[in-house]
Amino acid sequence: MDMGTTLAHTDDGQLVNEVLDGFFTRAKVRAGAMHPQYLGLWEHLEACTVGGKRFRPRLVMTTYSLLGGTNTTAAATVAASYELLHTALIIHDDVVDQDFTRRGVPNLAGAYRSLATDQGSSPEKAEHTGASAAVIAGDLALANAYRFLAEVDADPATRQRLGDLLDEAVVASAAGELLDVLAPLDPMPQTVDQVLEMSKLKTAVYSFDTPLRAGAVLAGADQELVEALGEFGRIIGTAYQVADDLVGAFGDESRTGKTGWGDLREGKRTALISYAAEQPQWNRIKELLAQDLTAADAAEIRELLVASGARDKTLKLAADLTERALDVLVQPFVPQALRDGLSPLSRLVTDRMGV
Amino acid sequence: MDMGTTLAHTDDGQLVNEVLDGFFTRAKVRAGAMHPQYLGLWEHLEACTVGGKRFRPRLVMTTYSLLGGTNTTAAATVAASYELLHTALIIHDDVVDQDFTRRGVPNLAGAYRSLATDQGSSPEKAEHTGASAAVIAGDLALANAYRFLAEVDADPATRQRLGDLLDEAVVASAAGELLDVLAPLDPMPQTVDQVLEMSKLKTAVYSFDTPLRAGAVLAGADQELVEALGEFGRIIGTAYQVADDLVGAFGDESRTGKTGWGDLREGKRTALISYAAEQPQWNRIKELLAQDLTAADAAEIRELLVASGARDKTLKLAADLTERALDVLVQPFVPQALRDGLSPLSRLVTDRMGV
Repeated sequence: MDMGTTLAHTDDGQLVNEVLDGFFTRAKVRAGAMHPQYLGLWEHLEACTVGGKRFRPRLVMTTYSLLGGTNTTAAATVAASYELLHTALIIHDDVVDQDFTRRGVPNLAGAYRSLATDQGSSPEKAEHTGASAAVIAGDLALANAYRFLAEVDADPATRQRLGDLLDEAVVASAAGELLDVLAPLDPMPQTVDQVLEMSKLKTAVYSFDTPLRAGAVLAGADQELVEALGEFGRIIGTAYQVADDLVGAFGDESRTGKTGWGDLREGKRTALISYAAEQPQWNRIKELLAQDLTAADAAEIRELLVASGARDKTLKLAADLTERALDVLVQPFVPQALRDGLSPLSRLVTDRMGV
Repeated sequence: MDMGTTLAHTDDGQLVNEVLDGFFTRAKVRAGAMHPQYLGLWEHLEACTVGGKRFRPRLVMTTYSLLGGTNTTAAATVAASYELLHTALIIHDDVVDQDFTRRGVPNLAGAYRSLATDQGSSPEKAEHTGASAAVIAGDLALANAYRFLAEVDADPATRQRLGDLLDEAVVASAAGELLDVLAPLDPMPQTVDQVLEMSKLKTAVYSFDTPLRAGAVLAGADQELVEALGEFGRIIGTAYQVADDLVGAFGDESRTGKTGWGDLREGKRTALISYAAEQPQWNRIKELLAQDLTAADAAEIRELLVASGARDKTLKLAADLTERALDVLVQPFVPQALRDGLSPLSRLVTDRMGV
């Protein structure tokens, strides 16, 4: 998710980097004293974190600063907590999805799979070694997301509310991930509402909703504003996912960095697919999805998605959700600076609607 | 691990149950409001926790009480934290070990494997569904181990030290698990020292060392005593594992509840096996371990383990470690009541040496 153009760059990003760097430096010293192989795991874990765009930290820092918060070290610590939560969730999500690469390069599980393969393990055993290392690394990231919160310089009540928010993020993302895991067991295609609910729980709550609220809580914002930011985050985060699914199906790989038909091939449940499932074209699409897709098959599916009206409906859904999200920000109790600072997040969605 | 005869039963156990019951009741209400399938996951998670012997909570409560602690609700909250950590670690350890049963009944992964099988998934896909649900459930248990600590009624400095201890437990168990995962990649059999180190990290630290220290820290014990309890815990916990491995190889299934040769069949690295690997009988043992073991093969391995002297060396190691652990407790600064209360833990080891 490239936030380069949507949120202002400030020294805050540097501060988050410093907090995370300091954490990993200490962790690696400790791990290295225990075992060289353990140091290796921490190095891989750090690489997972460093590779990201720091999107969630930016939401925390931006909200905090725009609400007048001045204890940027405390905010950076909260921000680092959400970054580690994100690291934990993508590492474990890759285990669930049996993915061994991320953005074209080996992920943590992929690195350990290679290690096992190099030592003579069978492909199956090597995959399991990779997945096992990823389970362990994700646990370390998750545990330390909580540890960061315990270190935030804030009064007990604020710290308690920050803990409740992290808890909400973890509970929601686990719910979304479970629904995603169990969805294929249901013979009925998911409805659009089910897809949106899953996507909200799995991604929007921890990636948008709770980081925004955490920044506001730390800045001492009123409950009304905190809740509005959460609502904005859940809706814009869901809109983002709807639009991102369009990229998965229609995107130009060279421009978006996503493989054009990866989502289609994996049979991923998306709003786009749910709309298509209500139309006569669905039978043919289902037939194509059930087999190993060729490029020609994928092109045919895309044509059917357009012909069925599913693409237009998805575009409209993303646009409607974005509008609803922005409406939340125009309420009078939302400070102008915050509205101006966060509204550009809608470009995350509209950028993806041009595909 | 049956602690029925080794630590005094008190009302403390009831208090820990109440803390955990309250937690799961609230969590299930919240999960049920999100999705019925999510409620199901929490019910399975609760079943994992309820099924245990509450060994780690008992260590926390016993140490705290014997050191004169009176805020038993705070102690029960710390105890509940270690119980949830244990739940998280066994659930994820079962994923790593690809185990779908525990003590003869389906574990959490096994329950979801059955669910997927019932819905028509292939055996391979069903196993992955089970493992995925277990990754998610373990994450929830781990996150809530940290949440419990945030709720402990204690001053900030004590709370910080309790957080450091939980962190030590998580960091050590992850290190031990990783070494266990990567050990098969090393063509050399592990030395006894390597096995003991892995076992200390993977189990003794979180199951003995840190619960004992946490009880003492909460009770306001001196640093000297806290560290001695940790040392006692690490050594007795390692001794327990050495003796337990004997049960795995020589135990009578009907009496111990462990399958007599499960450990041998899985090629588990144990002190017993490391001793055997130094002897001429090892070539034949290795030959047998490499194939699907029959009962006759297992009997032959047992004879070779005795003939090689590995069994006797293992018994001596367990006895020596137990003695070393008890020596820690006889230091003059260890209160008599605590020494009397914790020394019976040595029976956990000696009980296993009679096999």
